[in-house]
Amino acid sequence: MALPGFRDFYPNDCAFRNSIFSQWRKVARRYGFIEYDGPPLEPLDLFTKKSGDEIVAQLYHFKDKGDRDVALRPEMTPTLARLVAARHRDFKKPLKWFSIPQVFRYERQQKGRLREHYQLNCDIIGEAGLEADIELIALVIDVLRAFGLTTNDFVVRLSDRQFWTDFMERRSVPEDQRYAFIQAIDKSERESREKTAEKLGPLASEVFSILEDAASTKSDRLDAVEASLRLRGLQDYIKRDFTVVRGLAYYTGVVFEAFDRSGEFRAIAGGGRYDNLLKNLGNADLPALGFGMGDVVLGEILKAKGLLVQARPPGLDMYVIITDPKFKSGALKLIQAARDQNLSAEYAFNLQKPDFRSQLETALQKRARLAVIFDAKLEHNTIGVKDLAAQIQEDVPLDPNEQIGIPFLIDYLRKKLERLSEK
Amino acid sequence: MALPGFRDFYPNDCAFRNSIFSQWRKVARRYGFIEYDGPPLEPLDLFTKKSGDEIVAQLYHFKDKGDRDVALRPEMTPTLARLVAARHRDFKKPLKWFSIPQVFRYERQQKGRLREHYQLNCDIIGEAGLEADIELIALVIDVLRAFGLTTNDFVVRLSDRQFWTDFMERRSVPEDQRYAFIQAIDKSERESREKTAEKLGPLASEVFSILEDAASTKSDRLDAVEASLRLRGLQDYIKRDFTVVRGLAYYTGVVFEAFDRSGEFRAIAGGGRYDNLLKNLGNADLPALGFGMGDVVLGEILKAKGLLVQARPPGLDMYVIITDPKFKSGALKLIQAARDQNLSAEYAFNLQKPDFRSQLETALQKRARLAVIFDAKLEHNTIGVKDLAAQIQEDVPLDPNEQIGIPFLIDYLRKKLERLSEK
Repeated sequence: MALPGFRDFYPNDCAFRNSIFSQWRKVARRYGFIEYDGPPLEPLDLFTKKSGDEIVAQLYHFKDKGDRDVALRPEMTPTLARLVAARHRDFKKPLKWFSIPQVFRYERQQKGRLREHYQLNCDIIGEAGLEADIELIALVIDVLRAFGLTTNDFVVRLSDRQFWTDFMERRSVPEDQRYAFIQAIDKSERESREKTAEKLGPLASEVFSILEDAASTKSDRLDAVEASLRLRGLQDYIKRDFTVVRGLAYYTGVVFEAFDRSGEFRAIAGGGRYDNLLKNLGNADLPALGFGMGDVVLGEILKAKGLLVQARPPGLDMYVIITDPKFKSGALKLIQAARDQNLSAEYAFNLQKPDFRSQLETALQKRARLAVIFDAKLEHNTIGVKDLAAQIQEDVPLDPNEQIGIPFLIDYLRKKLERLSEK
Repeated sequence: MALPGFRDFYPNDCAFRNSIFSQWRKVARRYGFIEYDGPPLEPLDLFTKKSGDEIVAQLYHFKDKGDRDVALRPEMTPTLARLVAARHRDFKKPLKWFSIPQVFRYERQQKGRLREHYQLNCDIIGEAGLEADIELIALVIDVLRAFGLTTNDFVVRLSDRQFWTDFMERRSVPEDQRYAFIQAIDKSERESREKTAEKLGPLASEVFSILEDAASTKSDRLDAVEASLRLRGLQDYIKRDFTVVRGLAYYTGVVFEAFDRSGEFRAIAGGGRYDNLLKNLGNADLPALGFGMGDVVLGEILKAKGLLVQARPPGLDMYVIITDPKFKSGALKLIQAARDQNLSAEYAFNLQKPDFRSQLETALQKRARLAVIFDAKLEHNTIGVKDLAAQIQEDVPLDPNEQIGIPFLIDYLRKKLERLSEK
């Protein structure tokens, strides 16, 4: 048994996971993001410096054999901050970087709460202007669209953390009450109106009207974001919603969270602008923003919608059936030649009693597209090639000048596979 | 700073690493291997059960918050054995499975010795016949060939662990001295002849003549392996060498190690048949064989040979240059449409003082293939498209019936990019 909260990836699970990764990479690259990575094990203080000592309760941490306090990474941002602080002068700004780390938290186990997950992290570093926020939100939307999710399936709730900072300033909320104030707004969806009102005190009714009528609350920043997303045709994927404040202490500007519209699942993705974090964590005083999207919630939603269910290990290009050991040397030459052309090919290891039926069954079970049949027809200078989906067999004449005529046959097979792919 | 022995992957490093992964996957799939994965953190006893308590000295291990003894995986085989024991009845034998885990060992640091590396693991499970050994060795060779390495660069040294077991039986080496006997052979290359002779006692001269004249030592198993690799045209990549015994206690049949011919680097890959391991570790009594190939030694060799040096983050398909903010809305529509077609497109976030030169420089720095230029020509219904490698600009007429004519333009750009790719 794997440890509780950890997943095994049998071939079908691995194919599903890899399809998510591959879609993530593809869309991030469309936006010009480039991939980086860091170690899964880091010095413990890298994480406490950002999140305070409370985070330790949720970490897999220990002392290594060199007496260093180390921890499995619970998130990628501190590693990113470390990398950027060390070498940002080598790169032209803004950086548009992504990564797909596995991250770890020791949490009490609940349904769907694992202790590890993979997380797409996309960050833009060194650009203070709103255009970067817009690009990042468009990217979140396009990542989800790429999986086949539509406006019926998800919405990105947009908010402005600076709006609340300005609001608290204007209404003279004392500095030491501001964190609690933000927390109260964050929890207002899950807590009773009474409880939230109690926390917010005399400002409660004003806050409620902002939360309930977000559309008429003025925010130049969100106006600009919405206008640009409209130009891109992405306006139906977003909704202004000031309850989104992203719990954490360090956001400074536009923040957002992607949710499924059914409300059944936890947040799919979340992020925003964190202009002071890199300065606070390291030596790089650079504005920054980013989001994270986990593979677990996304995977649950895709499964619930019947999307990506076809993710399986790739099938074979050809299975080579050998009906008599005397054909084996020719078959092996063909197989090697096919593989040299990056075609996938397999055959039965055990040919002591070669059986056509059982080899054909194996070919089907391995989802081979073609069966290439080495049998008595070879003696009449033809070879059987069967399209296993269409169940049509052709007898392909072999090059009479060569013993088996591998180059000719490979060429035929490659072209046939190309035609099948086009269908 | 990352922990000692751990690597950061800045974009170029990450591209290099990912190129290795992608080549590994490609060749494993040609051979019909399918991918699986498991958790990087496992119960400690999964590893001590296979390797004994001595392994603990090399592990990153600790007690988790649930008081479980856990360890970062130092290798993949125990996880594979666990997965196979739990569910092998769901899969048709033989299994041909591969994985690319990151594995961890707390070793004293030396040049090139990291505390983590990625390791391609390919295993065949449930096939006792030699044909599986041959297939696995052919796969090791083809993986290295796929990187551009040739017979001048590497050799796979083949040996037969069973040969030595039979030899010790025949020469009546007592059971309790057999492990030391095998170890002496393993170390014979690195130790003086005298020291090895002392360890081997009266059998020394016979052993030396086997090691020194491997070709004339009889082994039906190696004869069969060599014959089949010859059929595949791979005979120049192998060499019979009985010093290879693969230190570890659990190998039972053919074993092999891949080395660079210069002798400068540590082993590139190693593996063999381990028919009793799955039974000893779990409940699955299945014959098995496999190999591991790390990314670090391989990467060093590729760099030394000047191979894969071109690995970089992918360049952009197009950079959109915007010379006046009034063109921005049209540009954004084009960019979104391009991305929807899986083309990568970027533009300058900051257009307060749009500067053609600096945008063109950015386009070149990002290795964009095309620059699409939104400038005054748009008012005459054409748009500039520049092939940045050839430094040739075309003025493309726009569809007169539409404001910018995005679909027409996208179609033009897609075809142009396809033509550039064919070159």
